[in-house]
Amino acid sequence: MSKKVYTFDSTLRDGMQGEGIAFSVEDKLNIVRALDGLGIDYIEAGNPASNPKDLEFFRRLKGEKQQHAQLCAFGSTRRKNILPEEDSNVKSLLEADTPAVSIFGKCWDLHVEKVINTTLEENLSMIESTVAYMKRHDKYVVFDAEHFFDGFKANPEYAFLALAAAVRGGADVLCLCDTNGGTFPTDIGDVTQKAVCEFPGVQVGIHCHNDTGMAVAQTMFAVEAGARQVQGTFIGFGERCGNANLSTVIPNLELKRGYEVLGEENLKNLTETARRIADISNIWLPSSSPYVGSSAFAHKGGMHIDGVKKIRESFEHVDPQKVGNNRRFLMSEVSGKATLIKKIQRVDPAVTVKDPVVGELVDRLKQLEFEGYQFEAAEQSFELVIRRLLGKYKQYFALEYFKIIGEQPLTNQEYPSSAIIKVKVGEESRITGAEGDGPVHALDLALRNALKGFYPSLEDMRLADYKVRVLESSATTAAKVRVLIESTDGKHTWNTVGVSTDIIEASFLALTDSIEYKLTLDKV
Amino acid sequence: MSKKVYTFDSTLRDGMQGEGIAFSVEDKLNIVRALDGLGIDYIEAGNPASNPKDLEFFRRLKGEKQQHAQLCAFGSTRRKNILPEEDSNVKSLLEADTPAVSIFGKCWDLHVEKVINTTLEENLSMIESTVAYMKRHDKYVVFDAEHFFDGFKANPEYAFLALAAAVRGGADVLCLCDTNGGTFPTDIGDVTQKAVCEFPGVQVGIHCHNDTGMAVAQTMFAVEAGARQVQGTFIGFGERCGNANLSTVIPNLELKRGYEVLGEENLKNLTETARRIADISNIWLPSSSPYVGSSAFAHKGGMHIDGVKKIRESFEHVDPQKVGNNRRFLMSEVSGKATLIKKIQRVDPAVTVKDPVVGELVDRLKQLEFEGYQFEAAEQSFELVIRRLLGKYKQYFALEYFKIIGEQPLTNQEYPSSAIIKVKVGEESRITGAEGDGPVHALDLALRNALKGFYPSLEDMRLADYKVRVLESSATTAAKVRVLIESTDGKHTWNTVGVSTDIIEASFLALTDSIEYKLTLDKV
Repeated sequence: MSKKVYTFDSTLRDGMQGEGIAFSVEDKLNIVRALDGLGIDYIEAGNPASNPKDLEFFRRLKGEKQQHAQLCAFGSTRRKNILPEEDSNVKSLLEADTPAVSIFGKCWDLHVEKVINTTLEENLSMIESTVAYMKRHDKYVVFDAEHFFDGFKANPEYAFLALAAAVRGGADVLCLCDTNGGTFPTDIGDVTQKAVCEFPGVQVGIHCHNDTGMAVAQTMFAVEAGARQVQGTFIGFGERCGNANLSTVIPNLELKRGYEVLGEENLKNLTETARRIADISNIWLPSSSPYVGSSAFAHKGGMHIDGVKKIRESFEHVDPQKVGNNRRFLMSEVSGKATLIKKIQRVDPAVTVKDPVVGELVDRLKQLEFEGYQFEAAEQSFELVIRRLLGKYKQYFALEYFKIIGEQPLTNQEYPSSAIIKVKVGEESRITGAEGDGPVHALDLALRNALKGFYPSLEDMRLADYKVRVLESSATTAAKVRVLIESTDGKHTWNTVGVSTDIIEASFLALTDSIEYKLTLDKV
Repeated sequence: MSKKVYTFDSTLRDGMQGEGIAFSVEDKLNIVRALDGLGIDYIEAGNPASNPKDLEFFRRLKGEKQQHAQLCAFGSTRRKNILPEEDSNVKSLLEADTPAVSIFGKCWDLHVEKVINTTLEENLSMIESTVAYMKRHDKYVVFDAEHFFDGFKANPEYAFLALAAAVRGGADVLCLCDTNGGTFPTDIGDVTQKAVCEFPGVQVGIHCHNDTGMAVAQTMFAVEAGARQVQGTFIGFGERCGNANLSTVIPNLELKRGYEVLGEENLKNLTETARRIADISNIWLPSSSPYVGSSAFAHKGGMHIDGVKKIRESFEHVDPQKVGNNRRFLMSEVSGKATLIKKIQRVDPAVTVKDPVVGELVDRLKQLEFEGYQFEAAEQSFELVIRRLLGKYKQYFALEYFKIIGEQPLTNQEYPSSAIIKVKVGEESRITGAEGDGPVHALDLALRNALKGFYPSLEDMRLADYKVRVLESSATTAAKVRVLIESTDGKHTWNTVGVSTDIIEASFLALTDSIEYKLTLDKV
């Protein structure tokens, strides 16, 4: 049997069922780009029938060319007792205009008779006719066999009749779903093997949930039993306890069991992609995440550090570089020199790996990471760090002071905050004031007003996104915050970061980097 | 074979190796009390040799009677070429004066020869003599077979010789450790079964790490193969990716596989214990934690809500009450009146679905969602919305005004922000000031200081988490922000939300809801 396994990400569909998960259209586009860039095969991007906003999103996606991934829209089989072409949900699935569709249908007799209240026969017809209808429209059809494992336990014959109906309709993939998440890995393996044997011409997929903390193991067992499409969400989002975490499943398959999934080169981008998706989602990627977490290869105990230094594999199950992660001792350690040198050479191509500045940069990064900085989603702040070290940095302005004032109830009936700022450019100082919706807004306006007279190109610049992340939950309102800012001048887009216990200061640091990067870009 | 499985918690030992984990002595005492109260069998409470403070802690523990748990101290086999009684580490292990000890020893020939640099024979003697020495001191001895599975892969014969040495010394338990976390569940099962067959008179234990996201599955496979002691940490803390999560393993064993672990009654305290330990640890228990997370039985999609109402097991793998958790229907555009009525009836059971107040609430909810509110992660703010509509709301205080001031550079060299607030309770006004790391921190402190005199129970309350989400990217620093706050008084945890274009105002709204909910809870 082939060792090729296809990946199917549902962050934007099943992941959206997770508590507290909400994406803007821009967030979703960025997630598709990140997954596509990594080499994910199928991206399930929404459910156009249940959410009309998803149709809009699919339209915007059409405008972008994906390098590798096939987009997929998700929907139900037709409603009972009508034709597929009469079903508005089925129609909106076609309107999404994606090369692939996933159609979920009932496989558990209990659900057929007690939840959707139809006959067992009609349900089979709903599956077959909907799949066939999609095939007539040239779709790649994944049949999501909902509750397949619970259904198999209750009535194995009927569960297989549901699969057979999808096969008659022409389904390309039979994806077996453990919808309630309670099935054990061995049972998943046994039942998957039966499906693989029963339908040798059709690919079998697997879709697991983490309700027993075993979604990854369940998925592994299904693949070992012959499943060749793994569904999950990239960093495990999903209803209740989440879906199978693809950032764990993929390296398990590839590094531990020799399957072909992303390939060696793409796999090196695994960690960066996970962190980017976490940042886009405004979710703190747990440091203990297998393979991609910042602690995944962190060694704290003295004996472990000693051991891993003597022989890598003595305390490490895989080489962290294979997934783009790093070994860390004690508090922090940063990306390998080889990664850094690439970024340095973008600023100064003459620097080589033996240059002492590389070691200085490693030390500086350690220090910054210790303070709570992360540069995965703030490359331009990182470029400024490099420029400062290389002496290729120009200070465009200096802060003399700022003061912000906020109050309730409002005295001017409009803006709750005002800011005054004094900056120095060369020998010249300027003071400006501004009022705004909140202290950061007022400060942003005051700063840019003060600088525009000196640097007119700042007129073109605007902030595109502003994100705040609290770093440690323990100290709560006194905890450190990391502010990420995305800026644009219509032509370029750049990302900067600031960290402080004070949200105002963190924002000011990120704003300062953003303006300095813009002026560097303009070669002012 | 007996279905009784013993639990061994290492939160205070292996858990302490987790990044960012640090406990005070008081924290540790509280964790022991929580684990003991739940019925955990063995509590590994520290490593007296590597950490002298642990000896102090063991002394304090002696003063308390545990109801059920046996305390355990952890340490290494003796050093090479000396007697156990000559080894200071072994001596400090005895000084801990616990009924049980866990002794770790090398089982992987690579580690023996290349890391601790001794002969294979001497290592076996180190194991046997140390275990025997502890047995002479009447200890219950758990032999932690370090790197057992990697050792077995490299040299199966030697790995078993190490176990045999521990058995000759008189070990009560042979705990097989997957120290690097990379072994697959099937391999864990196969090797465990060999050990169970080879040493029929000795209990076999299992100790797994989550580096492949499968620690729970590995543990389950070991038990199915005959292991009868499960080691782990209660909510999964531990080096790198953490240890097997006992709050998942225990209900898996008990509810899904019929093992005797805590028993039905104790199991009902599982969720409360997990939340208490998270709280003591100042760690945010992930809402997606299997069985014990706040989302573990939360339903968002309309179809799922519909299904679970018709038949519980249609979308739920176990009954949440068995682990002391609750089913929740999340607020969102998709949930209809039927979901709302349950929440209303918790405040006033007399309200029926036909009551006009239900329609009013739907309208109010739509309006609030339009403004950017989301209540799925802020149920207690939603309860306050219901209370206000039903007239079951008491205003505990009114804001007269607040003013916040922030500046750079700092004038007082410490806190960048200060706040002054005037509140009115009944006819009495109070003004307080506070300074803090950032304006929200200062305002939070000032508000609670102002109210504590009126409402002493606010002393117990603290913020557990603070999250900020920018709602629309377009307007950036003037965009709306949604602030989510989680608060706790050690017994209950609640979540509130505030939305505004001003982060200060949004935070203030969420803080106000949090305090009002606490006072409602206390029936002040």
